[in-house]
Amino acid sequence: MKIKNTSLAILLGLVSSSASAKDYVITDGDRVIQKGDWQISNKNISPDAPSFTIENVILKGGKQEGSELLTIKSEGLTINLSPTRGLGIVNVEGNGIRLGWDSPVKEIVNPKYMNLESRGGAGWLDGFNEMMVRCGFEWTGHAVQADGMMYTLHGRAQNTPVSKLFVEVEDQAPFTITIRGLIKENTFKKSNFETWVAIRHVPGSKEFTVHDILTNLSDYDRDYQIIYHSNFGTPILEQGAKFVAPVKEISPFNEYAATGLKNWQTYQGPTKGFDEMVYNIFPYSDANNQTQVMLTNNASDKGVGIAFNTQQLPVLTLWKNTDTLKQGYVTGIEPGTSFAYPVTIEREQKRVPQLGAGKSTEFILTYSLLSNKEEVANYDAKIKAIQGNKQTKVVEEPMAKE
Amino acid sequence: MKIKNTSLAILLGLVSSSASAKDYVITDGDRVIQKGDWQISNKNISPDAPSFTIENVILKGGKQEGSELLTIKSEGLTINLSPTRGLGIVNVEGNGIRLGWDSPVKEIVNPKYMNLESRGGAGWLDGFNEMMVRCGFEWTGHAVQADGMMYTLHGRAQNTPVSKLFVEVEDQAPFTITIRGLIKENTFKKSNFETWVAIRHVPGSKEFTVHDILTNLSDYDRDYQIIYHSNFGTPILEQGAKFVAPVKEISPFNEYAATGLKNWQTYQGPTKGFDEMVYNIFPYSDANNQTQVMLTNNASDKGVGIAFNTQQLPVLTLWKNTDTLKQGYVTGIEPGTSFAYPVTIEREQKRVPQLGAGKSTEFILTYSLLSNKEEVANYDAKIKAIQGNKQTKVVEEPMAKE
Amino acid sequence: MKIKNTSLAILLGLVSSSASAKDYVITDGDRVIQKGDWQISNKNISPDAPSFTIENVILKGGKQEGSELLTIKSEGLTINLSPTRGLGIVNVEGNGIRLGWDSPVKEIVNPKYMNLESRGGAGWLDGFNEMMVRCGFEWTGHAVQADGMMYTLHGRAQNTPVSKLFVEVEDQAPFTITIRGLIKENTFKKSNFETWVAIRHVPGSKEFTVHDILTNLSDYDRDYQIIYHSNFGTPILEQGAKFVAPVKEISPFNEYAATGLKNWQTYQGPTKGFDEMVYNIFPYSDANNQTQVMLTNNASDKGVGIAFNTQQLPVLTLWKNTDTLKQGYVTGIEPGTSFAYPVTIEREQKRVPQLGAGKSTEFILTYSLLSNKEEVANYDAKIKAIQGNKQTKVVEEPMAKE
Repeated sequence: MKIKNTSLAILLGLVSSSASAKDYVITDGDRVIQKGDWQISNKNISPDAPSFTIENVILKGGKQEGSELLTIKSEGLTINLSPTRGLGIVNVEGNGIRLGWDSPVKEIVNPKYMNLESRGGAGWLDGFNEMMVRCGFEWTGHAVQADGMMYTLHGRAQNTPVSKLFVEVEDQAPFTITIRGLIKENTFKKSNFETWVAIRHVPGSKEFTVHDILTNLSDYDRDYQIIYHSNFGTPILEQGAKFVAPVKEISPFNEYAATGLKNWQTYQGPTKGFDEMVYNIFPYSDANNQTQVMLTNNASDKGVGIAFNTQQLPVLTLWKNTDTLKQGYVTGIEPGTSFAYPVTIEREQKRVPQLGAGKSTEFILTYSLLSNKEEVANYDAKIKAIQGNKQTKVVEEPMAKE
Repeated sequence: MKIKNTSLAILLGLVSSSASAKDYVITDGDRVIQKGDWQISNKNISPDAPSFTIENVILKGGKQEGSELLTIKSEGLTINLSPTRGLGIVNVEGNGIRLGWDSPVKEIVNPKYMNLESRGGAGWLDGFNEMMVRCGFEWTGHAVQADGMMYTLHGRAQNTPVSKLFVEVEDQAPFTITIRGLIKENTFKKSNFETWVAIRHVPGSKEFTVHDILTNLSDYDRDYQIIYHSNFGTPILEQGAKFVAPVKEISPFNEYAATGLKNWQTYQGPTKGFDEMVYNIFPYSDANNQTQVMLTNNASDKGVGIAFNTQQLPVLTLWKNTDTLKQGYVTGIEPGTSFAYPVTIEREQKRVPQLGAGKSTEFILTYSLLSNKEEVANYDAKIKAIQGNKQTKVVEEPMAKE
Repeated sequence: MKIKNTSLAILLGLVSSSASAKDYVITDGDRVIQKGDWQISNKNISPDAPSFTIENVILKGGKQEGSELLTIKSEGLTINLSPTRGLGIVNVEGNGIRLGWDSPVKEIVNPKYMNLESRGGAGWLDGFNEMMVRCGFEWTGHAVQADGMMYTLHGRAQNTPVSKLFVEVEDQAPFTITIRGLIKENTFKKSNFETWVAIRHVPGSKEFTVHDILTNLSDYDRDYQIIYHSNFGTPILEQGAKFVAPVKEISPFNEYAATGLKNWQTYQGPTKGFDEMVYNIFPYSDANNQTQVMLTNNASDKGVGIAFNTQQLPVLTLWKNTDTLKQGYVTGIEPGTSFAYPVTIEREQKRVPQLGAGKSTEFILTYSLLSNKEEVANYDAKIKAIQGNKQTKVVEEPMAKE
């Protein structure tokens, strides 16, 4: 088990405030600040700034009462974030293309109404509807009873309201907007993880970057896991939609997925009774450990790409949940340290890294909206370049049984 | 298993706004509205309207902090509702007679402080004190571990804050007041139930009607269950109080209840160590499937009646909890789809209906306060008419063992 | 099992309002009052009053959003209380000496974000960081599955927001400040405990008194348990720090603690991998059943003393958690009805008292900050006087196995 030893100081440098930026504190528990309803626009930054707004609102009603929703709206993208749910990405829109999906869960559920232990440890499903959910960091994967406790489905980060929420906007070109939140996973004797999560967007662009820094504040080395559970439905997902990635090895998650293995690269339309097929992928990456993967629609004129680093996130889960529209027609493209097996299996198979006492590690993923054939083709070409002539090993047997 | 196929359009017609009514939105998550403290009176409606007030307040302190309490006060009845607890009916008062009971739980507990999984799945007892609790809709009954999860006592609806809360008052006679709330039971892959619950009251009358419409928004037929757990203590419940119903068959819930079977129609006074005796009843109904049942005090000059439809709610649980006053001296008169056995038993015995994909079903119950001998006698006469000469089968053996 | 029969009337007399005091209602659910942000100072009381402030603030951010923090600041002590967490004592400071410790949990976690059932019943650890936690009153001790439920670690009182919060300040010397809160542990059929908890402080003094009155409002005698989990880290706890008490009998909690038995009176510095050693102590007391115990630093010039009544709290748990600073370097000095074994073991060994139906019992503990050699020596002398020539029995075997 490799122990990550990057120091926090180095990592924080990567996301630290530019000398020429405006900073806004939306929430800071240490200073007893939580602004709730709040907004700014380009006019607050500079006469030269391109048009954008950043708005935070407190939601109402039902199980979303008190949840905050932070929206960045630029000429390129509209990005909805949920500070109350670990600064997860609710959904994104650009050029009329939605990144996200339609879950039966419509509310942005406030964690105060969640019970992760319910439904045999799958209570997480009561709130799952985001485009991107952080599954981690103390553990992730399917629920399992072990070590005298329930490791609930996909960990706790997404159901943890951020303790700090900062907005930073550069006051000169490219006027990069950074939203930063602090997720605390602190439990006496058990966990002392703090993660600064960030979303960066250059107004007008069709991209955004997730840049998270996980720190183990304890005096002990500790296991960690993370899956960036990135989920897309219509309009990109449709019959004939394709998943494209540089793949070193792929295998089915279980026997049911094995029956769909030969078609792993393409999607069915909404299919009653399909449920889900899941595949475990080891991606290839380039000389700098960078890789990228893509989902496109059938016509290859709409898509979404995710670029990430395979040293940070060595594996990828492909979750094909092409059930009916109302059931949740969605595919998950999920770079991670781990597959979605329970932590017990991931430990056995050596996919649970440790973070040294006092050390930090980081995860950087860039999501690109691809809104025409050319953009799709260009993104595809880079994926093909990473694959090169290298073979894809297709393993027919699942690597584990739950 | 019969599948209900009534369409939502037809059902909504039954409760849709009158053309001549005033509508107030108290809470609507979709429009980011949650008014909290709010009130109106007859003066807001029409100079001709009879005296009434409708008030919503946000409660404070302890585990009721943030709970809302909505009160309708007319010359006939005062009705307290809990929007934060699934628009349950806290209690009702008219002519100095209270419909409701005294639980050791005094606070209107906000679900954010509840844990239904606690106490072996009986955490629901931490908040139970209402005159009417909806036990459903995804499941109901005693807690049971099955299908890899805990089916917690009496389901989740009562501990779900409404996502929408609307008040409608007709602006001409009879100036009917309707309070309507939306309960969402949505869980990815598991449930997609939405229930519009409503309470209707004509100001000045001694009645109110519960009218709920459950819709299965998913693409799959799904099991549902509901028990309208309607609970009454003093002053109606007392030594010699009587339960009157047209009964086709009655049997004890368990061996302990079997020992009290012969006295099922009457009540003891508060009795230390009594705990509870429960009876399973199949009621008779009239040609329109309507039935009605009644609880009266010993002198038969105070009572409460419940009228309902046996196609909607074919069975009735009679819960005799005549323990001490402080322990909770109370009887439950509980029309339902199901008895209070765990869902596993109810499934085996075919009392768990299904609701077709996209379909709706409805439940209508009218509660009448009976405040003198004549009203009691009249209500009794109708019950007797339904029974007619038909026999009551008394089964001595419980139909199941938990 | 002795049943306590003191009447509530007598007990309330002990803490009732002085005829000459000013009373402030900060929270009262019955009157729909919850002031949240609020403050007063000596100027509100009398020109003769010594300098002090009392302030209540609503915390923000992360899992402490909505938690209240009440601070008494006098020339003697600054006392931070958490009304939202059962009026627990967060920390205390006087003469530059901190009473309290550094947990990895930094936030004052609002119970709405807690799940006591998580981590196999040890979810309580997600919020544990106070100087004094009430572990009770329905049960306490290590988590255990029994009686068809999980008895979660250390009970529920600390994760129950107070239903009432009153501040009382005498308007003449000594101008005693009393903060009083009501903790409700009410569950239908299971529990009907209400506890008036109080903290009293004479401005300018270096002492404060905890005075709690537990009442069993039910018609049934009920078991109760309480441990006053009082926790201290630096600067008093350090290598060479000492625990001093009049001890009748001491034994190790388990085999691991047995290995440190001979050094039970002294502490190590922060020690990686130490985890915790726990000792079960039966203290001696004086003719009035009063006893006192003390923790001092190595130089015996800083310390904290706790005086209590062994009829109320007959045993004491000594928790030596001298692990690393970041892991939580802390010792717990924990007078109680019970040791920290699961309730099942405490019942077997007859350390679970009952409280009669309708009866009350009380617990009074006075905490003294000792800020120089003389104060430490004086406190020590009183402890020695209680021990006198009486022997300490050192038992090498744990009294139970978990």
